Amino acid sequence: MKAEIIAVGSELLTPDHSDTNSLWITQKLNEAGFQVHGKTVVGDDAEAIADRLRFALARAQLVIVGGGLGPTEDDVTRPGVARALGRRLVRDTALLEELRARFTRRGYPWGAPQERQADLVEGAEVLPNAVGSAPGMWLEEHGVHVALLPGPPAELVPMFESEVMPRLQRLGRGRRLARKSIRIAGMTESQVDGCLAPIYRQYPQIQTTILAAASHIGVRLQQWLAPGEPPAALEELAGKIHAALGSAVFTEDDEPLEEVVGRMLRESRRTLAVAESCTAGLLGGCVTRVPGSSDYFLGGILCYSNDAKIRLCGVPEELLRAHGAVSAEVAEALARGVRAALGSAIGLAITGIAGPGGATAEKPVGLVYVGYADGAHTSHQRRIFSGARNTVRERSVYLALAFLRSRLLAAEEAPS
Amino acid sequence: MKAEIIAVGSELLTPDHSDTNSLWITQKLNEAGFQVHGKTVVGDDAEAIADRLRFALARAQLVIVGGGLGPTEDDVTRPGVARALGRRLVRDTALLEELRARFTRRGYPWGAPQERQADLVEGAEVLPNAVGSAPGMWLEEHGVHVALLPGPPAELVPMFESEVMPRLQRLGRGRRLARKSIRIAGMTESQVDGCLAPIYRQYPQIQTTILAAASHIGVRLQQWLAPGEPPAALEELAGKIHAALGSAVFTEDDEPLEEVVGRMLRESRRTLAVAESCTAGLLGGCVTRVPGSSDYFLGGILCYSNDAKIRLCGVPEELLRAHGAVSAEVAEALARGVRAALGSAIGLAITGIAGPGGATAEKPVGLVYVGYADGAHTSHQRRIFSGARNTVRERSVYLALAFLRSRLLAAEEAPS
Repeated sequence: MKAEIIAVGSELLTPDHSDTNSLWITQKLNEAGFQVHGKTVVGDDAEAIADRLRFALARAQLVIVGGGLGPTEDDVTRPGVARALGRRLVRDTALLEELRARFTRRGYPWGAPQERQADLVEGAEVLPNAVGSAPGMWLEEHGVHVALLPGPPAELVPMFESEVMPRLQRLGRGRRLARKSIRIAGMTESQVDGCLAPIYRQYPQIQTTILAAASHIGVRLQQWLAPGEPPAALEELAGKIHAALGSAVFTEDDEPLEEVVGRMLRESRRTLAVAESCTAGLLGGCVTRVPGSSDYFLGGILCYSNDAKIRLCGVPEELLRAHGAVSAEVAEALARGVRAALGSAIGLAITGIAGPGGATAEKPVGLVYVGYADGAHTSHQRRIFSGARNTVRERSVYLALAFLRSRLLAAEEAPS
Repeated sequence: MKAEIIAVGSELLTPDHSDTNSLWITQKLNEAGFQVHGKTVVGDDAEAIADRLRFALARAQLVIVGGGLGPTEDDVTRPGVARALGRRLVRDTALLEELRARFTRRGYPWGAPQERQADLVEGAEVLPNAVGSAPGMWLEEHGVHVALLPGPPAELVPMFESEVMPRLQRLGRGRRLARKSIRIAGMTESQVDGCLAPIYRQYPQIQTTILAAASHIGVRLQQWLAPGEPPAALEELAGKIHAALGSAVFTEDDEPLEEVVGRMLRESRRTLAVAESCTAGLLGGCVTRVPGSSDYFLGGILCYSNDAKIRLCGVPEELLRAHGAVSAEVAEALARGVRAALGSAIGLAITGIAGPGGATAEKPVGLVYVGYADGAHTSHQRRIFSGARNTVRERSVYLALAFLRSRLLAAEEAPS
């Protein structure tokens, strides 16, 4: 079934704001069996809203209108929709009293502009707003369904989940888009595609997309299912992909890599310290995005200068001279050094050339070494990343986390 | 004059991709005197493209269509536009030869799909593509102008700048939106508004917007100017704002705070080291986003655990016991300690409670202390931020940079 999304708001027609609701709405519509055929942004202008709604009504079975339901002068979705449908606006006295009580209880101003929030398009069902004041509406016109929703995501999302989704599932009659998401660490996009293409090509009914993010390679599987059809092929393909990639798969729940690694550290009761040269804090910042990371993260050293590498991480000056700061030897020495300095179970280090400056004949921009040290074992990984300074730095952080994860997995298999 | 933007691409109707070109295009249109009245996203479907283009042609003086000009089967903007205008597609033989030469020179495949890139909508002017293969087109239909542009920003932006912008400036006949942007550090949004409202209310012809970003408070001034009208009122208001806020203004060129502070450090030949508790690397990561920051940034210590504060930053254990890790005393001790550990001119420290855990009766989530130390001077700032864990951490970073900037400004005024 076809759906259209209309976002209302003059600010969405400036260079400063884009419509972000529609991505989330699209996902929910897909889940309920609707495909989005068009998206439109229109300003706070009742006639323009009416104009674009008429266009959408003639082309879709469902129209989602977001925004313009607030109490201010420029919130004109209500009159715009009434005009498009040739219906009146009717003030709902029960709703009016409810809103008045709510506003006065909170000490908010109450007057004619606020009262307009109790105006309903004739024939509309009210969609209660659990979070804010503007109620939504559900309408039907010649078999086309229309949902009017508040613009702020904090109000739109819960209203969509509790009020719109059940109605869509009835309309969709069980047809839906089933999805699976698989995230992979420590492989490149072309390695993943080379490994998986012979497998997913056997499932032409499933749309397979490989997406390269800074933190991982993602594989997305999508399949439209008929009412009552189980996602058996999807599960089968996901299983084969998992079997082919093995432990490179780190989540099927869109969990960030730093959370997965954090849980492994917590469960194995190992503590972590980091030494960062070119990333200068991004790895520590990433590890500690996870609430409760103080259970396993002790701290680290930002050894941006060579002097800091020597003084704080105990890297021998001869080693720096012999191999350079960006080298396997120094990466391993930094990992060992930061482990000793912070008294952690594991030391993890990054040294590299983020650019744009700093390259030499042998060492190009994008060259990165990651070092790992625990009591028993020291090792490193080398990679040359393409991209600008901050792309190289971000990828280095996730290379380090992927490397740490592979070492933790190895330790699980062969406990020392 | 009214403009409409149409973005073509089925991927823009999925939950994974949004149309990002239109923000940039809007800014350029505004500069040339056009206001965007509507934006639409449509899939790779010639009839749907024609349908939405007809709608836009009836409502605007200018329509910008982006995407769908490539060589693949699903690039159908050309036939869609031809259908909307009731014109034929005509293969341009000179363009065909040029494209063929280009493709074969680079070893790319050449065949019927690629040949379609030489098809022009009858009556179109070619807009040369300096970067990619798909040429753009410029059309006129009953006084409405239409630009067809490639979708990838790397191709769209230079084509817009060199080919579309001069045409728009002729059409706009000198009417334009003039803009000024002012960024402020170390003040809250309501402080800025309280200070500026009496000033900007005297300029009703100028649209003044105050935006709170994590790194700063921004003030944007916008004014539509008639042909030949100088931006005198805009300059006057900007001058009054600058005078009212004084040194709290850190840029009128949208320069990030970390660049401004970096330049001050370089110019004053001072080096910096950071000690980070709750931010755990975000400050170091931010300072080193600036290429060449190794000129003044030596490194730092991520003292997430108390033990790290004691061992690596030399914070006395008694101080931690007496005041707690999140205190003015410890913030200052960390700044002094990291300065000594790295041998820098300045030490800058952050300690706080990012949440969701860690609060006590006296110390709420969001409480942050920033410490500063140079040879002559030690001081701190205290703030309670609202927001989730990573909001608190991000704001703490910019509080620290704003504090550092204020100390560097003070040092400029009274050199020690």
